[in-house]
Amino acid sequence: MSEERTAQPVSAAGGATAALEVQSAWRRRHVLDLDDFSRSEIEAVMDTADAMREVQAREVPRVPALRGKTLVTLFYEASTRTRASFELAAKALGADVINIAVSGSSVQKGESLYDTVRTLQAVGAQVLVMRHGSSGAPYLVARHVQMNVINAGDGWHAHPTQGLLDLYTMRSHLGDLRGKRVVIVGDIAHSRVARSNLWGLSTVGAQVVMCAPPTLLPYGMPSRSRRPLRASADGAPAEEPLALPRVQVETDLDRAVEGADVVMALRLQLERMTSGLLPSLREYARLYQVNEERLARARPGALVMHPGPMNEGVEISPAVARSLQSVIEEQVTNGVAVRMAVLYLLARGR
Amino acid sequence: MSEERTAQPVSAAGGATAALEVQSAWRRRHVLDLDDFSRSEIEAVMDTADAMREVQAREVPRVPALRGKTLVTLFYEASTRTRASFELAAKALGADVINIAVSGSSVQKGESLYDTVRTLQAVGAQVLVMRHGSSGAPYLVARHVQMNVINAGDGWHAHPTQGLLDLYTMRSHLGDLRGKRVVIVGDIAHSRVARSNLWGLSTVGAQVVMCAPPTLLPYGMPSRSRRPLRASADGAPAEEPLALPRVQVETDLDRAVEGADVVMALRLQLERMTSGLLPSLREYARLYQVNEERLARARPGALVMHPGPMNEGVEISPAVARSLQSVIEEQVTNGVAVRMAVLYLLARGR
Amino acid sequence: MSEERTAQPVSAAGGATAALEVQSAWRRRHVLDLDDFSRSEIEAVMDTADAMREVQAREVPRVPALRGKTLVTLFYEASTRTRASFELAAKALGADVINIAVSGSSVQKGESLYDTVRTLQAVGAQVLVMRHGSSGAPYLVARHVQMNVINAGDGWHAHPTQGLLDLYTMRSHLGDLRGKRVVIVGDIAHSRVARSNLWGLSTVGAQVVMCAPPTLLPYGMPSRSRRPLRASADGAPAEEPLALPRVQVETDLDRAVEGADVVMALRLQLERMTSGLLPSLREYARLYQVNEERLARARPGALVMHPGPMNEGVEISPAVARSLQSVIEEQVTNGVAVRMAVLYLLARGR
Repeated sequence: MSEERTAQPVSAAGGATAALEVQSAWRRRHVLDLDDFSRSEIEAVMDTADAMREVQAREVPRVPALRGKTLVTLFYEASTRTRASFELAAKALGADVINIAVSGSSVQKGESLYDTVRTLQAVGAQVLVMRHGSSGAPYLVARHVQMNVINAGDGWHAHPTQGLLDLYTMRSHLGDLRGKRVVIVGDIAHSRVARSNLWGLSTVGAQVVMCAPPTLLPYGMPSRSRRPLRASADGAPAEEPLALPRVQVETDLDRAVEGADVVMALRLQLERMTSGLLPSLREYARLYQVNEERLARARPGALVMHPGPMNEGVEISPAVARSLQSVIEEQVTNGVAVRMAVLYLLARGR
Repeated sequence: MSEERTAQPVSAAGGATAALEVQSAWRRRHVLDLDDFSRSEIEAVMDTADAMREVQAREVPRVPALRGKTLVTLFYEASTRTRASFELAAKALGADVINIAVSGSSVQKGESLYDTVRTLQAVGAQVLVMRHGSSGAPYLVARHVQMNVINAGDGWHAHPTQGLLDLYTMRSHLGDLRGKRVVIVGDIAHSRVARSNLWGLSTVGAQVVMCAPPTLLPYGMPSRSRRPLRASADGAPAEEPLALPRVQVETDLDRAVEGADVVMALRLQLERMTSGLLPSLREYARLYQVNEERLARARPGALVMHPGPMNEGVEISPAVARSLQSVIEEQVTNGVAVRMAVLYLLARGR
Repeated sequence: MSEERTAQPVSAAGGATAALEVQSAWRRRHVLDLDDFSRSEIEAVMDTADAMREVQAREVPRVPALRGKTLVTLFYEASTRTRASFELAAKALGADVINIAVSGSSVQKGESLYDTVRTLQAVGAQVLVMRHGSSGAPYLVARHVQMNVINAGDGWHAHPTQGLLDLYTMRSHLGDLRGKRVVIVGDIAHSRVARSNLWGLSTVGAQVVMCAPPTLLPYGMPSRSRRPLRASADGAPAEEPLALPRVQVETDLDRAVEGADVVMALRLQLERMTSGLLPSLREYARLYQVNEERLARARPGALVMHPGPMNEGVEISPAVARSLQSVIEEQVTNGVAVRMAVLYLLARGR
């Protein structure tokens, strides 16, 4: 019974020994999304990240696990935190890092994505961390390279390491996430963070609530949220369908946060205003801002999360963002440990 | 008597031993400007920089003093020399360096400065080197982070490591700077280099002459040059006022350089022409260029300095820029040693 | 007889021992073009690159030959592969790397090239890798610095490390290149790759065929291809003229590839269309694309090369680009080894 096998709790207990055992579950060459991560793969990341947190606490927080390896960050979209987080994670493991931002690369000469990544591989990179505006681009790449590919965000589709660091942060406060109520509020339709969280949270048994105004919910959510993207991504024949994640959809935030263990606000892209999806920022903030009154409806001590960067005063009130319940900066710090874990597991599997 | 305590000469003698003693004077967490540097703090930097010059002369000019630490350069304005100088200084001490330039970062998404620096801290950076177009921005940052903040230039306000490397360069040629006549000529009103030099030079007892056309002198110079900037910077209640630096103001360069030990030309921002502050480059060069005739009025062997990049033929003649009296490239080389010293002292103090 | 001395075969045999002997031929401080490379200098690079290929095959492909040294990449034109290749080569040898792209540097402030490179030298760089839009710029720089200067592409003039990696790739498949027929097809007139290959290939005794439509051939090719560029580059008095390379010029690709050992397609800059030099891409592809039918006229197993990035379907057909005869990705991989070799030889010579 696969339900039996994967029913182990995603506990916060696992030390270095547990990590080593669980890692044997890891067979993955790429990290493209969480939709095909098993519960034991997620646990392998979590337990390894615990070990990396211990490394981070050392006087010299460096281990040579990736010494002599080269990681390339290839970013077609701007980023501070994700790029810096991967760069630091790689350097903490002793890897060399080469950063390629689109402006300043021969991508401007019209080089194809295929050519670019084949070149980076031929130059000697072992790991490619890529962010791209088109959903599915990392899937295309992964089919044509021997490098380990990590999706650092592709269009509206996926951002799996963000999902993993969110899981890790929740687990470190709440322990086993089965049955925990996690409310994600904001521009669900265009959020790769929401999608990756949905897959990861479902796999570990959390109860996910998506909350947004109707114009910012995906069509036919959630059942049609995944298939078209996979298909357009690599055109591969559909695999055996995974169980679709269960998700509760709400348009009323007050009702959604009722009894929540976690409230995660998403960044509102301000350009949504001009495209007619939202009447005004004031209106949005009035109905969907995570503020103190709404948070009071959640469980006492419920966690407040945000993938950053925040628009304070829009999707989240400053008071909530800086409250004791906020673990927003912890998410960033955990992000480095989780990325170290992912890099470590990928390197081990080579 | 504090005058007693700080009256020691800023001598060039101090070797590694002296450096170790003097460093006990260092309690500073940030380097934002030189206006609150004591004479013994300046000496600590100078003596430590002497030790770093020795490191630079080694076959492998590297020491592991900052091994395992991460320094971030966050530049909202373009720079070649300052960024490269800090990057090299940090790497020479074994630190990892992450460079963030505004184009290519999520600052373009409208992330606030506060959010950006909190994120960099959460990612694991210990030292933040920042350049920003707004005077006072590093003060705002320093109040909200545990990182060591180094101001690498904020608007027209301050550029303290430039001031320190200028002091170091003067000291290495002239020894004790008390009573030495230092003429700074150019666009004083808009120069953070001039301001930081003024504070540093005054503290070590040099006699400072500022020379500029009246339109490029600050209003009410010098007494009103500092207070408004501090206030706008962090809105904090005014501290006990320091003794205001004494400065001599001159609009006639021929008179200013009379008997000078140092003549420092500042870069003329060519956009000043269009804003009506100057009639023409020719006119400016005729009256304010540091050239051979004018230099002949200074002391024999007077030092010629420039913070770079130079407009040769405008604020300085090519002949003077490349003369034996010019220490302009030495300033750049010393800049790395002085920044190594500052990074070392900040790390030691943690 | 110099013909005697340089007549040794450029063989693929040389291991580490041979490399050490041959390196004594190396006296060079800069690598600006291949027009003045002797056969034994080229062999020194080839043999050292063999040793570097061995390093690359190690579990930790790093050697500390440049530890404590700093290399700066100064790129006034965008690049992915060349910059990444040099960066990786330098890091594999233990050097620190500082990247300067034009956007994001004080070059935007109008700093002169002279000032910029003198600053980089004063900051402590030992090696400068530069790409510049103006032919001859690296020559100008090399005359004013003590750093080792490597030309990573200057205008239409030269790209010597590309020439060396092309030679290395040919040699590793064909052994001695004397008498081998190498066809270079495409926009010869504007190609620094073609020029550097021409000098290198001539020196090792290959037979070079340049093939292009008449509008994309240089005037008076080849005799007038070099002198004007040298003169405009540094204005120096002409040296004793080298023997001009022999080259065969063809406008008919079918005839050119007859019996070829190597067919190298050049990237067609799409902006040539708008400047009236070519009627249409279709027309160009019909006459000058390297495709399967044309390749069949070459020797069996002839190598297909391209400096990248490719316009597949224009100057090269996708089938040929990915055929077994294509060594295009091998060129990229060899590029790192050849650049490691060049950096090693320059550092040894200091």
